[in-house]
Parts: sequence; structure tokens; C-alpha cells
Amino acid sequence: MLVRGKPHRTIWLKADGPGCVQIIDQRALPHELVIEDLHSVDDVFLAIRDMHVRGAPLIGAAAAWGVYLSIVGQADKFDLETLIEDGEYLKTARPTAVNLAWAVDRVIGRLKTAESGHLALAKLEAELICDEDEEICRRIGESGLSLISDIAQGKNGPVNILTHCNAGWLATVDWGTATSPIYHAQQQGIPLHVWVDETRPRNQGASLTAWELCEQGVDHSVIVDNAGGHLMQQGEVDLVIVGTDRTARNGDVANKIGTYLKALAAFDNKIPFYVALPSPTIDWSIDHGKQIPIEQRLGDEVSFIQGYLNNEQVNVRLTPEKSPAANPAFDVTPARLVTGLITERGVCEASEEGLLGLFPERGKHD
Amino acid sequence: MLVRGKPHRTIWLKADGPGCVQIIDQRALPHELVIEDLHSVDDVFLAIRDMHVRGAPLIGAAAAWGVYLSIVGQADKFDLETLIEDGEYLKTARPTAVNLAWAVDRVIGRLKTAESGHLALAKLEAELICDEDEEICRRIGESGLSLISDIAQGKNGPVNILTHCNAGWLATVDWGTATSPIYHAQQQGIPLHVWVDETRPRNQGASLTAWELCEQGVDHSVIVDNAGGHLMQQGEVDLVIVGTDRTARNGDVANKIGTYLKALAAFDNKIPFYVALPSPTIDWSIDHGKQIPIEQRLGDEVSFIQGYLNNEQVNVRLTPEKSPAANPAFDVTPARLVTGLITERGVCEASEEGLLGLFPERGKHD
Repeated sequence: MLVRGKPHRTIWLKADGPGCVQIIDQRALPHELVIEDLHSVDDVFLAIRDMHVRGAPLIGAAAAWGVYLSIVGQADKFDLETLIEDGEYLKTARPTAVNLAWAVDRVIGRLKTAESGHLALAKLEAELICDEDEEICRRIGESGLSLISDIAQGKNGPVNILTHCNAGWLATVDWGTATSPIYHAQQQGIPLHVWVDETRPRNQGASLTAWELCEQGVDHSVIVDNAGGHLMQQGEVDLVIVGTDRTARNGDVANKIGTYLKALAAFDNKIPFYVALPSPTIDWSIDHGKQIPIEQRLGDEVSFIQGYLNNEQVNVRLTPEKSPAANPAFDVTPARLVTGLITERGVCEASEEGLLGLFPERGKHD
Repeated sequence: MLVRGKPHRTIWLKADGPGCVQIIDQRALPHELVIEDLHSVDDVFLAIRDMHVRGAPLIGAAAAWGVYLSIVGQADKFDLETLIEDGEYLKTARPTAVNLAWAVDRVIGRLKTAESGHLALAKLEAELICDEDEEICRRIGESGLSLISDIAQGKNGPVNILTHCNAGWLATVDWGTATSPIYHAQQQGIPLHVWVDETRPRNQGASLTAWELCEQGVDHSVIVDNAGGHLMQQGEVDLVIVGTDRTARNGDVANKIGTYLKALAAFDNKIPFYVALPSPTIDWSIDHGKQIPIEQRLGDEVSFIQGYLNNEQVNVRLTPEKSPAANPAFDVTPARLVTGLITERGVCEASEEGLLGLFPERGKHD
């Protein structure tokens, strides 16, 4: 999508490379645009571990490029053992990110059987992973576009869409998941306005989604997480689209903490509530959302907040020093509150039946 | 309630006065305890306007002491005209606060007919307003106590109570409204744990409610506003108690933005949701909550946040400079989601019938 008016991905091979991969260092957003050069496996490891990049699809893409940089580092002689060591090292950058291990294994698997041309092959495979991710996100956008255009036909003025957290292109290689239908609608000339939940505690909405929409020229307003219910009561929201970290077989959806509250409000006000997801985030082995473990993160993310002061990022305290804070990072929205799931194969009901209609090959438990 | 182990009110006449009223300057909380001396009508005006004190009952009490300080300022000769002028000036400090005008008019009304002893009379009336407010809040606590003790009898471990914003003693003269049942339960030795919603955008929960509970020694955890729904799903909340700015005749409740979302989650998880209110906040002239106008405040409260850095309060930017922000300050929770109203006359159903059961003198529209 656009950055300062020019099309960008979140990760790419530097043109005058080889041997240099570039990313947007998301820690500096929304206040500064920092393009970071990654030259080594170590650079990629740190970029993933310290969240210069985040979002499962983008972490996978970064890891793939990490394997490529491992081979760049080997100079003339390809050594599979070193490559596997580097791969295992990369996998530990964020141990719970499934895409990370998947991408590392995929690129290394492609190289194992090759006798020569490993650098070119690694580059090809990393590019393929990026292209595939972009394609999945593009299709999610096409799937979701009609949900927006149908609303646009029935009203004057912009379609008001509420979103929570950042399920935007910054979490993927391009397009994003929840944002992809929005960007597709923008390309169709449909008038839009997006309510951006700030998404405490880490404020991915206020910092990342708002930045994306600014750069892309999509009309939007940042709101506190408390405001969405009231806006729905007032008829100011036509549609909710969020992303998901994991979807259970029955359509229950785990996503950033607070998603459940917005789903309740949408249901109470008869506003459609959609979840956009690439099919790899469907966990077919899990029957319902109660089986999804919820990460408890450090209370400091609640007690402190990061902001911008005098041209630098600072971390300021919000709570009394003696007050403990609790910080569950995700919640589960039951399928009964979800109007539909937007996937790369189309839109379906949030149910096992709905999902199997689009993914019949998953008909048996696996 | 307790501050550094000693009982305090939010406003009091300085012991070695006369002529000096003291308040806790709430702008410095939770990071510093600043006791401010008010010597004049101007001091009180600024304290109200610039929110050194806030909360309708406390604003009323401060205004009453403002009238007293006006007479102190007159030295020997009582001049009714000056007093009325000062009163009108005080009323403009926060034009929408009903208690402000009410308190000013009450004290001046008491003085108008007196021929002498105006200073003593003004002091008496201001003290009476404070005592009456404390008494209302104490009774709200007694009314709500059994809701907590009943839960305590049925479970092991602490009763988990969730509250939103600050309907605490800092908003009143003492006890608070939503917090009064909590403090009464603490005095009964009932084990408690309070989930404190931080309450963006102004963070009254994270700064004021958390500070109160720290000082009072009530076990608590600060959480982001997004977390409450998940905690309810997990069975971690036994009871919700919030305050209200205005209650309609049918039991619809206007309160700080985000209250509605918590009421939805409580309803969805069959958790009792109570609203504590002094009866003067019931607006008998309004049939239902849709008639309550909702204040739209400046977007800067969303785009920036106040925190503590290197021993000083700072305001840091959270959003991209080009991103607009919207900031509705209150929402309306429909009576159907409210388990009951806790008043100084007891607990009733959130309905016209319920309210008239406690306040039969309001049987006719007025």
C-alpha cells in the first residue's frame, strides 16, 4: 500500500542488493518512518524478537528472508548444517509464532535437495512466500468488498466501518486482512470512513492502523476503545471488520483483547460484525474457542504507555506505583456474535458448516 | 477515607484558619499528593474550572466554600450585592454542573435573610452541604453492602468487583458512590478484589480510583478498558458497580463512555450490574436515556495522554499528527442491562416502577 504516495510492501529485497533486505521498523510508527536494512540472520532475529516487524504473516516472510541472508553470509560454500542451525535460531525469536517455524522449514526444505544455486533458490522461495501472502490478502479484500459496496448502495454519505487493533497491511506483506476489503472499496471509489479503536494496551490501532489509513488517504477517526458501543447506538457504524489470531473449527474467534466487547455491541445494535482471516489461522484441531489459551502479558503494558514527546518516543507511567495491573492479551468472541468470516475463498457463516463449505478438504478432524 | 493512613475528606476548612479551605489537588494524582490552600473566590473558581476538584457532589461542596470565602474577603462589612456577584462568577466555572449553581444559591439563600453572623452562617451551611453529601454516600454504601456480602457468603476467596471511571470518594466529599459499598464491605472484613478499568481517555480509573484503593488498602488490579469482557467470560468478575452522571425516569443510565460495553458483557455472562447513585442525579423530567444529550469533547484527549516521566507530568502524543480523533464523553446504558440501582434509600429495579417505589413523592411528572 502507499507510503508517502508510493506503493510499498512491509518487507523487500533492496534493489541495489543482493544481501540486504529492507523493512519498515514499526516501532517508530506513527511518528517517524524508519526503513531498516537487514544484512544478517542476527539482524532478522532481532527485528522479529524486538518487534520491528509483527503480525504472523509478516513474521513468516521475515523469517524466510532470514534464511536467505544466512546463505548470503555463507559466501561461496553452501553448508546445510549452518543453515539448519541458523533456521533453529530464527525460530526462537518468537517461539509462539507458528508462521515463523513454517516459513523457515519451507525455505530450508526447498534448499535441501538442491545441488547448486542455493542463493537464487532461497531468494525465489522467500519471494514466493511474500507473493502468496499478498495474494491471500488480496483475495480476502475481494471477498469482503461486496459487504461494503452493498451498504454503500443503500445509503448516502460514507460507509462507516469500525476496526480494532491492526489487522492491516503492516501485519502482512501487503493489503492486510481486515483492512483489505477497505482498501479494495477505496479503489472502487466507495466513500468510506473508518473508526479506529486505539486498542490499549499497545495501541496498535492509534499508531499503526491510523498511520496506514493516513498514508493511504482513507478518511478515519481514532477513538478510545470505550467509544465504539456508543457510536453503534447512535447509528454511526455500518459494519465492523476485525482480524483474528486464531479461529476455532466452530467459528469462535480469538483476537486482540476487547474484540468481544465490540461484537456484543454490534449484536445488540444489529450491526454486521465480520472477521477477516487467511485460512492458515483456522485451527482445525480445536473444536471451540474455550480451548484457545489466552496469553497473559506483563502488567507494565497497562501501567505505562508509549508516546511521543519533543521528537522522541517515551514511556510514561499512568498508574500509582503500588497498583498492580493485569493484562490478558486476547479474548474469544463466540461464533454466535459473528455475522461472517471473510476468507481468501469467500465469505462464510461463522460455524463448522460454514467453514467446511469453503474448505471441504477439512471435512474430517485432523 | 484514608490518605497515608489518616482519614480525609476531599475538602475541609483548615484547622488553624479561618479563611482557608483545603482540597486535594486531583491533577497531581496518582503520582503526587498535593494539598492546596484556597483563600479566595478566585482560588475556588480556578480549582473548579481547571479541575483541581471534579465530580458533581465535590464541585457543589467547593462552590459552597467559595461563597464562605467571599464573605471572608469582605472583612468587616457584609455586602449582599458583592456576594451575589461572586456567586454568579462561581457558577460560570463549569457551566453544566448542576450542583454548582444549586450549592451557591443554597448558601446565599441562607444568608439573605440573616441580619448578622453571616460568616458563621456561611460556614455552617457549607459544612452542612458537606455533611449531607457524606451521609448520602454512606447510605449508598449501606444499601449496597448486602450485594457484596451475599456473594461473599457463597464463595471462597475474594469477591471480585469491576468498576469503571472514578465514582469514588474523590468525586464526592467522602465514601464515593460506586466505591461506598466496597469500602463498607472492607470495613466488615469481607475479602475483596477490585478490577479498575483505566477509563480512557482521561484515565480516571487508572489515576484516581487506583489511588483511592491503594490508600485505603483495598486489593485491586488496573486493567485496560478492553479487558473486562474477557474477565467476565472467565468467571473472574462477581459484580459490577459503576456510578452515573444522570439517570432517566425509566432507569436508563448515562455514565462515562464505555459503561455500556461493560453492561453488555455483564448481561451476556449473567453477572449482576449495579449503578450507585445519589438521588439528586435522577432526572425525573426525562422519560428515557435517549433524551440525554452526550457531550462531545476535544479529540486531543484521545490523541494525547497524560503520564508521569522523570518526576513530572507530561502530555505525550499517541496518534499520527494528521489523524483526527472523535471523543464522545458519555454513553447511555439501557435499563434492561442494569440489575439494579443503589440509592441512599435502598436498592431498586432500574425502572420507573422501581424508582417510584423508593421515591413515591415523584409519582407525578414534574
